[in-house]
Amino acid sequence: MKRRLLLVSNSTVHGGGYLDHCQRDVRLFFGPDVKKILFVPYALHDRDEYTRMARDKFSSLGYDLLSVHEAADPVDAVRKSQGIFIGGGNTFRLLKSLYDNRLLCEIRRRVLEDGVPYMGSSAGTNVATISISTTNDMPIVFPPSFSAIGLVPFNINPHYLDPDPNSRHMGETRQQRITQYHEEPETPCVLGLREGSMLLVEGNKATLLGTTKARLFTRGRPPVEYDAGSDLSFLMTDAQ
Amino acid sequence: MKRRLLLVSNSTVHGGGYLDHCQRDVRLFFGPDVKKILFVPYALHDRDEYTRMARDKFSSLGYDLLSVHEAADPVDAVRKSQGIFIGGGNTFRLLKSLYDNRLLCEIRRRVLEDGVPYMGSSAGTNVATISISTTNDMPIVFPPSFSAIGLVPFNINPHYLDPDPNSRHMGETRQQRITQYHEEPETPCVLGLREGSMLLVEGNKATLLGTTKARLFTRGRPPVEYDAGSDLSFLMTDAQ
Ligand SMILES: [Ca+2]
Ligand SMILES: [Ca+2]
Repeated sequence: MKRRLLLVSNSTVHGGGYLDHCQRDVRLFFGPDVKKILFVPYALHDRDEYTRMARDKFSSLGYDLLSVHEAADPVDAVRKSQGIFIGGGNTFRLLKSLYDNRLLCEIRRRVLEDGVPYMGSSAGTNVATISISTTNDMPIVFPPSFSAIGLVPFNINPHYLDPDPNSRHMGETRQQRITQYHEEPETPCVLGLREGSMLLVEGNKATLLGTTKARLFTRGRPPVEYDAGSDLSFLMTDAQ
Repeated sequence: MKRRLLLVSNSTVHGGGYLDHCQRDVRLFFGPDVKKILFVPYALHDRDEYTRMARDKFSSLGYDLLSVHEAADPVDAVRKSQGIFIGGGNTFRLLKSLYDNRLLCEIRRRVLEDGVPYMGSSAGTNVATISISTTNDMPIVFPPSFSAIGLVPFNINPHYLDPDPNSRHMGETRQQRITQYHEEPETPCVLGLREGSMLLVEGNKATLLGTTKARLFTRGRPPVEYDAGSDLSFLMTDAQ
């Protein structure tokens, strides 16, 4: 399988600019042969403004950027793409727009069959997995399903957050929320990607990149921590 | 309209026991005439354990508690109820179970037509409103719709949380998430109920109770703070 994915937890780290913290990884990932990247801005309301910001950043890295919302035929734009980047925002809005524009199958086909490199950030990382069931976002619109593009056989929780020992807030911690997910039958692993971390997938090989650890949640087992640089290829087999 | 609702932000405040912080309000709300309260434990996975905890608490307040999951016919249990309490947990799981058991219409009818008092906490407060679109929970299961029981013509965000000025986390703040909701067309007001606050509804009169302020979000307008004791009856008209 030709699959190549760069699944980033978050687009901006505290005090930095848009995609600054992962720009070296983005360049290495898309490489010198890709010239033009197809951007999917559906997760934010103002698609024009979002595209301007992403275009500026990618242009500084040497890539032209075409936004799918500027294309006359979005499915055709995916069909012709050399590389795809889906940005963050609200995951429900993003997934609903992907369904509305009938893009899920075509993105899946291009990435898994044609080897088109796929980068996601935050919500764009959520939709690359089996489902959006472990997003942190509010369900502001109703998508036809929570099933997502399914480029990997597990779920990701981006912006993974450790409990704050000084907090007096009684809402569920992130870990408690993921545990509730695993109370449901036959739920897959959830990789908690802390801000500053990302997952690089090449074929069936998966590697944790970035500057922070990740926390892996498996149904019925205690969570496990992985350092940056860890080989997480075991997650890529369907029967984990 | 006979409607009587007690919509609590959270079941437990930091350092307190289950429903301790609102037990005086609960007693005043259900009063001496209600003897038996129908409990809906669907938001948590372990319904038996949840029922035990709620039963202990309500028993100490002088009420018998029957859980709907112990009833042979859940719809019939609603039909015969003198008072209803829906507890917190995961809002998606709760709403899906309400749909699976065909309880939404019957609860709505009992509360709005027969004046059966309805208490909700956290997820149980979310499902009392127009929709669950402003829940904080993860979408761990897929309900047939985000539309909820609709006992009030607006949305609530329970466990409302102010931004932490010292946080380095880059996920959206609660206010940003609600703003994203209001970017969608024709979205209703969202009442951000901080932990420790609750809304008492009697007919068309709505009063903020508890020990914390609430923050009201209206589409296209700046948010407004309301002190405990405020009259929020203006929220009860459909055209806010
Ligand atoms: Ca988001
Ligand atoms: Ca909850």
